[in-house]
Amino acid sequence: VGETPQLDRYFAQRVQRMTVSEIRALFTVASRPEIISLAGGMPAVEALPLAEIADLTSRVIRDHGAKALQYGSGQGDPRLRELICDVMAAEGITGSPENIVVTFGSQQALQLLALTCLDPGDVVLTEGPSYVGALGVFAAAQAEVTHVAIDADGVIPAALREALDQAAVAGRRVKFFYTVPNFQNPTGVTLSEPRRDALLELADEYDFIILEDNPYGLLGFDGGPLRAIRARDSDRVVYFGSFSKTFAAGVRTGWALAPAPLCEKLILANEASVLSHSLLNQMVVTAYLEYHPWQEQLRQFQSLYRTRRDATLSALEKAAVSGLTWTRPGGGFYVWATLPEGLDSKHLMTAALAEKVAYVPGVGFYADGMGQRELRLSYCYATPERIQEGIQRLSGVITRARNNDVSSSLSAIL
Amino acid sequence: VGETPQLDRYFAQRVQRMTVSEIRALFTVASRPEIISLAGGMPAVEALPLAEIADLTSRVIRDHGAKALQYGSGQGDPRLRELICDVMAAEGITGSPENIVVTFGSQQALQLLALTCLDPGDVVLTEGPSYVGALGVFAAAQAEVTHVAIDADGVIPAALREALDQAAVAGRRVKFFYTVPNFQNPTGVTLSEPRRDALLELADEYDFIILEDNPYGLLGFDGGPLRAIRARDSDRVVYFGSFSKTFAAGVRTGWALAPAPLCEKLILANEASVLSHSLLNQMVVTAYLEYHPWQEQLRQFQSLYRTRRDATLSALEKAAVSGLTWTRPGGGFYVWATLPEGLDSKHLMTAALAEKVAYVPGVGFYADGMGQRELRLSYCYATPERIQEGIQRLSGVITRARNNDVSSSLSAIL
Repeated sequence: VGETPQLDRYFAQRVQRMTVSEIRALFTVASRPEIISLAGGMPAVEALPLAEIADLTSRVIRDHGAKALQYGSGQGDPRLRELICDVMAAEGITGSPENIVVTFGSQQALQLLALTCLDPGDVVLTEGPSYVGALGVFAAAQAEVTHVAIDADGVIPAALREALDQAAVAGRRVKFFYTVPNFQNPTGVTLSEPRRDALLELADEYDFIILEDNPYGLLGFDGGPLRAIRARDSDRVVYFGSFSKTFAAGVRTGWALAPAPLCEKLILANEASVLSHSLLNQMVVTAYLEYHPWQEQLRQFQSLYRTRRDATLSALEKAAVSGLTWTRPGGGFYVWATLPEGLDSKHLMTAALAEKVAYVPGVGFYADGMGQRELRLSYCYATPERIQEGIQRLSGVITRARNNDVSSSLSAIL
Repeated sequence: VGETPQLDRYFAQRVQRMTVSEIRALFTVASRPEIISLAGGMPAVEALPLAEIADLTSRVIRDHGAKALQYGSGQGDPRLRELICDVMAAEGITGSPENIVVTFGSQQALQLLALTCLDPGDVVLTEGPSYVGALGVFAAAQAEVTHVAIDADGVIPAALREALDQAAVAGRRVKFFYTVPNFQNPTGVTLSEPRRDALLELADEYDFIILEDNPYGLLGFDGGPLRAIRARDSDRVVYFGSFSKTFAAGVRTGWALAPAPLCEKLILANEASVLSHSLLNQMVVTAYLEYHPWQEQLRQFQSLYRTRRDATLSALEKAAVSGLTWTRPGGGFYVWATLPEGLDSKHLMTAALAEKVAYVPGVGFYADGMGQRELRLSYCYATPERIQEGIQRLSGVITRARNNDVSSSLSAIL
């Protein structure tokens, strides 16, 4: 055994941006059973008919095991890609199986896109706040993220134009606008139909690509889904879909629908990254879509999450904390709250955890350190009773904090 | 619908290195059922007891579905990481579950390592020839690969020292030596025990890290496995393992064992890439290791592949093609052959496919265009009868080519 090398000398430059976040430490505490967690975005998989899924998985292996347990292709199983087109049709998309690449969750699709398209220093615009997993992918690609203001109808076109003009003046190349158009993570806000059109017009005018990340689109509570941006048939849109929320996160199956030249590169990047997605998982999803009434299951999920959204909103209204505001999502998993002026959501976590309730502080959803007064409340995972109890506790914490009655030391509890 | 963007303007610089290879086109032809394929490295999963695997998978979902179908952690399931330590112990490794990250096959572990450690222009040394999937990862990371000569005992230490000296003279930083020490892909050659020691001494002397990629180590045909390089307890080794060949490629489960500071970065890179590996797949592997006599199954695989290796070697000996040489692997999946002088293995594929037999031309296993006279024969997938028939056909093709009786137009058949 020789001398021990100093391993940090071997790290790549991009690793400087990858650090263990304080939020990760908070999650460790938040996952203790005594704590009511409104923090994580974990879907309510306990609502799935486990015995049926066990049976159809068993049949996949028993009847087609020599295929399911073998390597697959870099693009994904043809039958699943056909079924994905059926799923996307619900949001008005006419996609071809040829233009789909099946991935380990849409997170991996996003990473393949970054590998394929982002050079260090490229600019990515996105909503402010935005999905933390996407920000991580862009940071690892050494891209620069600029946030664009949103309101209750999603990203504000005038603000987007301003950001595009500023980038042009600075001589920076904007390659992408990244958006979660439906029931956004973390705000729950949905991009309105007119703004979807406006977004595409801006993409043509300023020559950028829209990354449409849509894990929640089929989990709306009021009527049918909006038409996807991609439904407008523009090659300026790369669409990302996922079965993590509409079926099961554990099958880690998502996809990208991309124009042919880009799809070909995504397939190559997929082969270089993981060779192929698991055929077992793909065939389980295929069997679920073919033999299980998945649209009925979707309605059950919608109903379950609607009940939990209602519990969240009614608890917030009942508590009526002075100065606290929040969004009213029409679907998905999340409510976004803004604290009374003078309060900091990261500092407040100490007191919240002491009262055995957890949320995600807002700063994690910004690449630029903003979001101190904001926080995300997830209603996807806890029962309505636990949600109401949790929000009651949190309301007490906020009220006491306004009266300057809270410890500011986060480290005390970690 | 606006104008169609020219998508190649959005590609990152690293994508210039990712192109559809001629070899990929060959694989499409080689996968036709009428062709005897000695090309792919697909394990013989049909030898697995499918009904038993179906049952244990069904139990995982029925009894633990709320966990198996949910998101997991970026590091991987703790119980599986314990069992992985038991598997590695067979090759003398004392690893801690804390230092393991579970990945979508060892291919993804290798990609995470590249993301974490490789800057453009870094030098990676590797055997010549080397595993095509690793070369793809290094190319995508814009690293420079330099091949080091091997013989029947693996990489030649004097040649490695020469390559290290040359890099030093050129002022280039060598970060890694990448090796498949056991039954190497593509040559089937195994690194001898004394050379494993010599390799570590060179790593200390020249200050580089050894990437020990070991998917085939437990698939030896003659006695127990050699001690892994990592068994020498050096922090200069990152070890990559996989269940793709010892259990099933379809579960896409591999791992890296890395010193703590690097392991932490690999976990972060994993979270940024895919959030977490599929818990379903991890729990299926766990159930397989806990409830199935996997060591007995390993012996069955060894016996099956030994029979196919023997069929390959005896067919080659029987054909006795003048000027053709080949390796004699002690395990794994592959024989590496060198054609008589003047022949080109890529050109020869036209005639081989016309005779309904396929292999992989050697050039794909080199980053520098070498390997024209070489080719890989896989014996993992075809039955012994098909292997013998395939080699008989191939021998005829080579013999006729030596008599200048072969078309040189590859495009004619594609």
